[in-house]
Amino acid sequence: MPPRVSTVEFRVRYAETDQMGVVYHANYLIWCEVGRTDHIRAAGTPYRDIERQGITLAVSEAAMRFHAPARYDDRIRVETVLSKVTSRTLVFDYVVSNADTGARLATVSTTLISLDPEGRVTAMPAALRAKLATVSSGAP
Amino acid sequence: MPPRVSTVEFRVRYAETDQMGVVYHANYLIWCEVGRTDHIRAAGTPYRDIERQGITLAVSEAAMRFHAPARYDDRIRVETVLSKVTSRTLVFDYVVSNADTGARLATVSTTLISLDPEGRVTAMPAALRAKLATVSSGAP
Amino acid sequence: MPPRVSTVEFRVRYAETDQMGVVYHANYLIWCEVGRTDHIRAAGTPYRDIERQGITLAVSEAAMRFHAPARYDDRIRVETVLSKVTSRTLVFDYVVSNADTGARLATVSTTLISLDPEGRVTAMPAALRAKLATVSSGAP
Amino acid sequence: MPPRVSTVEFRVRYAETDQMGVVYHANYLIWCEVGRTDHIRAAGTPYRDIERQGITLAVSEAAMRFHAPARYDDRIRVETVLSKVTSRTLVFDYVVSNADTGARLATVSTTLISLDPEGRVTAMPAALRAKLATVSSGAP
Repeated sequence: MPPRVSTVEFRVRYAETDQMGVVYHANYLIWCEVGRTDHIRAAGTPYRDIERQGITLAVSEAAMRFHAPARYDDRIRVETVLSKVTSRTLVFDYVVSNADTGARLATVSTTLISLDPEGRVTAMPAALRAKLATVSSGAP
Repeated sequence: MPPRVSTVEFRVRYAETDQMGVVYHANYLIWCEVGRTDHIRAAGTPYRDIERQGITLAVSEAAMRFHAPARYDDRIRVETVLSKVTSRTLVFDYVVSNADTGARLATVSTTLISLDPEGRVTAMPAALRAKLATVSSGAP
Repeated sequence: MPPRVSTVEFRVRYAETDQMGVVYHANYLIWCEVGRTDHIRAAGTPYRDIERQGITLAVSEAAMRFHAPARYDDRIRVETVLSKVTSRTLVFDYVVSNADTGARLATVSTTLISLDPEGRVTAMPAALRAKLATVSSGAP
Repeated sequence: MPPRVSTVEFRVRYAETDQMGVVYHANYLIWCEVGRTDHIRAAGTPYRDIERQGITLAVSEAAMRFHAPARYDDRIRVETVLSKVTSRTLVFDYVVSNADTGARLATVSTTLISLDPEGRVTAMPAALRAKLATVSSGAP
């Protein structure tokens, strides 16, 4: 089965625009984080709780392609999937679009690695990994 | 004596502008933090070291007046003074100006309170307070 | 009648936290802008449309008091009122609170001035001012 | 000849950290923009002037790899090269490192496309392209 997709929507904030009159590109990484937070919560493992277990998930790689600009007050949709789960890494893929027109604005992929409190790469706890694998596999 | 003044300069980043073509107002608080960090370092007590002692200085009040806009790539100057020191609070005043024209852009004041690791208001260590009081008094 | 109150809610983004483990103070100004955008839209005058008329509303003053910290993933509520309308200025007042606990996090006031495309202070168009005055007066 | 390298240095701002105690990943794109601005200025074509000619350079792709974290008050160095110039696109590569230890923190590449005032892809003016090509070729 394809991985589950979760969807979040929100409006562009004025602070997110720049003098080109469009959203500054770095903000898309923040929007993807909003999508990722929502996706992990939907998996039954709020990220806040993951950090309380002593695990942080840090972005180790990101790839972004920008297709069309977003503007102030546009309604934005972020669709997130967890496309890959290993013992130490997670790959999330995102499609950012205009919720009103459906126009695709950006496609983004981020790799996260699991770190212990000292910042060393570590395997995720088995229970966490199992929950995330379920979401990724698309199992109901 | 008047309190010591410290000065930092940097250029406006594109990310700091908004679609009005000027710097978004919230960024001035970040610039003041840059001035404050520099001022505290000049006092011989890098803020990084203060946090290592288990004290955080949190902004509890801010007042801002905007006089003229800053634009992309402008050279900005922040002049910072520590105008008041009590056992638990510090008041910093800032003048933000255009370093090339001298035009005054904003005047800001922030009050910081001393917190312990649990987030409770606490008196600053005597040694820290003494160093800060020296800066504030303008003693050489 | 008291001025109308509008309410927006959203979750704290990871990007908005700092190394104290709480929301960095400058973000509250951005949250107030979200509340203000919503409030102006509710008045029947989306800010996007105001700018298309050649008027920009720029923040000229801000006053902020911080009462308690916000943390990652907290649900935030911003209540906004337009407390004063003159020909050239608007004063908005905000209460930022935790939507789940009701705890008050910050109280903020901002003054906005009406600018023409050249950045000069100018009177707002009568129709715009009338709509805003209605909201401010609390008329239904 | 290898392309020219330009170097900028600055300190990590408190606002750039997150609750992991390290710099939030999206800020590296902003730092790269600081490096890019400096690099384009060194080429004799301040980006501010490019926009005045009616050309905007928008980020169309970005690829980022994170090697080690940056922390509050660290001195950061960004080395920028313009690795490729075509009639409509520029590719910049960046190495972000700790200026004190030399540790490599991130490697980033961004592609920028040339847009006209309506946001359509357009060829860069010949004079601009020639200046940029000189920098990229490493010619003195």
